[in-house]
Parts: sequence; structure tokens; C-alpha cells
Amino acid sequence: MDGSVTRRGQPCWYKKDGIGLDAINDAFLLEASIYRLLRKYCRDQPYYVNLLELFAETSFQTELGQTLDLISAPPGHLKEKSIHHPRAIVKYKTAFYSFYLPVAAAMYMAGITSEEEHNNAKHILLEMGEFFQIQDDYLDCYGDPAVTGKIGTDIQDSKCSWLVVTALEVMTPEQRVELEACYGRHDEASVEKVKTLYNTLQMPKLYRKYEDESYERLQKLIARHAENLPHAVFLNFAKKIYRRNK
Amino acid sequence: MDGSVTRRGQPCWYKKDGIGLDAINDAFLLEASIYRLLRKYCRDQPYYVNLLELFAETSFQTELGQTLDLISAPPGHLKEKSIHHPRAIVKYKTAFYSFYLPVAAAMYMAGITSEEEHNNAKHILLEMGEFFQIQDDYLDCYGDPAVTGKIGTDIQDSKCSWLVVTALEVMTPEQRVELEACYGRHDEASVEKVKTLYNTLQMPKLYRKYEDESYERLQKLIARHAENLPHAVFLNFAKKIYRRNK
Repeated sequence: MDGSVTRRGQPCWYKKDGIGLDAINDAFLLEASIYRLLRKYCRDQPYYVNLLELFAETSFQTELGQTLDLISAPPGHLKEKSIHHPRAIVKYKTAFYSFYLPVAAAMYMAGITSEEEHNNAKHILLEMGEFFQIQDDYLDCYGDPAVTGKIGTDIQDSKCSWLVVTALEVMTPEQRVELEACYGRHDEASVEKVKTLYNTLQMPKLYRKYEDESYERLQKLIARHAENLPHAVFLNFAKKIYRRNK
Repeated sequence: MDGSVTRRGQPCWYKKDGIGLDAINDAFLLEASIYRLLRKYCRDQPYYVNLLELFAETSFQTELGQTLDLISAPPGHLKEKSIHHPRAIVKYKTAFYSFYLPVAAAMYMAGITSEEEHNNAKHILLEMGEFFQIQDDYLDCYGDPAVTGKIGTDIQDSKCSWLVVTALEVMTPEQRVELEACYGRHDEASVEKVKTLYNTLQMPKLYRKYEDESYERLQKLIARHAENLPHAVFLNFAKKIYRRNK
């Protein structure tokens, strides 16, 4: 959909010989498999309908995130990119399915169905998910493709990433003119100019600061919101993602 | 996915300015809306989980049908097309969602959940769905685009349609050589040759015969299988589709 070439170090599925747009149907088949697996293994359980609803709702949220991502990407819309956009994109596109979903599923299976406890878990996990995606944005530009398994194209694709949004906040009007001339272009020279600008603005330093603050905020959230849930669920999750390089 | 240009007399969604492959995400959003609607209007009903399962299972069956359709379409595979293929394609791609789904949903909502009664209804409705799609294959070639709202491209797309499969059964080896040379080609001359061959083989006459037989078979199925269900449910459905021209 976004013209990517690789995912997790492999060529994208649609790039395989004889696949092409048939990949659309394959994606629907994968989604349908969720409900076949739930039916096969959980049909007689009291939490069956909770899981059905959770997966359906999470798919919908992810698709909303994908929509936000798509409509914020067209070139020439740099002036509309703001810190609010990537937060919403990340929350819907990544945080619900990667962070809230697995913990919420476990909670339902353990018989925890109260809306309050789910909201508490959601609060912590969406914050974690937001950080995770911002890290992803950072690694798209500053990560090592040999380690991350993908070649970043956010600059070329005019993505509304944490880097460009943060850069827009701290740059001079002159630097902005330069950015607008180069962002969203595919030629090597334009991409390099954006990267040089990021370095001039000390983005790696701003990112480290953001990472530290986010980690601290998260610890406080866990202390405050995870009253009845084992803190280890959240702390182990946090350990996995902070300071990661892939 | 199949490169079609129009649907129901309108340009295909992906053809609209600024849509393109974003249509994939739009399709997922539409699918997600099913579960949001069911949740909004049926969540407190005893048949809620039946409907969730019915829609999920029907989506899966439709996607399987789409897969069969896609893998049977590549050019040069004419020799592998047989009467068994289109039957399976039609059953999964069209009959479950267009025919069984609406009646099954109504049955669940009326409190009819027995597997036997659902199998009886399925038996009748899948037969009807199969006829409906074969009619669609016929109209793709013999229908009037001004009436059907779409321009047929089954010949060009090398589709495993009822026409080509039936034609393969009745043609001479010489006619088969001609068909193999022309089927699945986009030039006007090849398409016309296939159509002329269909006329030589009297496909409209074979189709009318098939339609009459199918209608008779259906009446018998309804008499035999719709014991506890109002026959009008099925008969009204049948009246809508037999002898249709769009």
C-alpha cells in the first residue's frame, strides 16, 4: 500500500513472483484466521465473546491508524504535520494491536472483564506503544538496516514521523525552507540534505532525552494505574523495548 | 485485484483520484463496520455470538472463493479448467455471502439454531447461488452493458467461467486449438473469435436448457428440504433471480 520493498528483513509479500495484488486477498485470509483459531480453541470458554470483540475492535483501530498514516503522507502537506498527528497515528496504527491487545486478551482469559481495569491497562500500554513507534521512526533514519532488517524510506515517503515533527518545532524559518524543498523527494541528494539537517538539529540528542523522559513517565504510570494487576506484566514489556536498536 | 474498471455501473473505487491502493485499507474498514454494527445493535441479544460467527465464517468462505478465482485465472491454464472449478469458485465466492448469509442471519434472529435446519437452508441456497453466478458468467458475455452496468472482461481475463468450461465439454479438438489461441488475450480480434465460437456452439441455447433444469431442481430441493421453514423465503428469492437480465 505504501510501496515498501522489505519487511523484517524479507522482501514484501506482494513483491514475490505471481503474488502482486493477490496479496490483498491473502491479507484478508490471514485476518479471517484469527476468528477460525478463536472458534477452534476458545468457543466453549466464557471469555469467547470478549476475545471476538477485542480482536474485531483492535483490527478496526489499526485500520483507522493506517488511514491516518495514509492521509497524512502525501507530499506538499508538510505545513499540516504537527505533533498531534503522529501521536494519533501511532496510538491507532500500532499501540492498540501491539501493546493493549495481548495484555487485554490475557486479562479476559483470566476472568478480568471490568472496564476500569481494562482502561488502566490501556493507559499504560498505549503510552508504551507510542514510545515504541517513535523509536521506530527514529530507527527508520538512524538505525542500521543490517540490524533493523529494513531500509528506511520515511523521508522519501514524506511520512509524518517523530523526527520531522520534532525538527519542525525547533528549526529556524531558513531551515524550514530547506526542509520543505527536500522532504518527500526520492533523489539521494535531497534525502542526504534532510539527514544533515536532522544532525545539525541534534535529533539523536533530542531523541535520547525523549526516551529518558518517556521511561520515567511510564514507571510512574505503572505505579499509579496497575493497582490490581502484577507490575511485572508491564515492567517486562518496558524492559524489552527501551534502548532497543532493532 | 482483477484490474476491473467498473462495478455496478460506476468506476471502481480504486480508480478514483487519490484512492489507488488506499482502497485496500478502505475495504478492511468496510469489513470492520460489520462488527461495529453488530455490536451496536445486537450486543444484548441471545443470537449475538451466532451472528459474529456467521459473518466471520462467511467472510472466510468468500476469501477462499476469491483465492480459487485468482489461482484459476492465469493465462495458459485452459487445460486445467473443468466443470469442478467454477462450481467450487461460485459456492465460496458468491453463494455463501449472497444467499446463505442473509437467510441464516434471519434464522438465528428468529431463534432457529439447529445445525440440521441450517444445513437444509444452506443446501437450497447454495444451489440458488450457484445458478446466480453461472447466470452472471453468461451475462458477462451475452448481457447488455447498458442493463447490467458492467463491461464483461471474462474472456480477456482468462476467467474460468461457465461458458468456457461448458464450451470445452462440447467442442471438437480443432475448435479447442482455436480457443486456446484466443482465450485470455486482450485484442479485439481474439475476443471476437471466442464469441463467434460460443455462438457456433449454441451457448445461449445450452444456457437456457441449463436454466430450466436448474429451476426445476430448485423447486424439488425446496419441497424436500424446507420442511420447517416457510417455503416463501426460498420461492421469493428464486423468483428474483431466474430469467433476470441484469
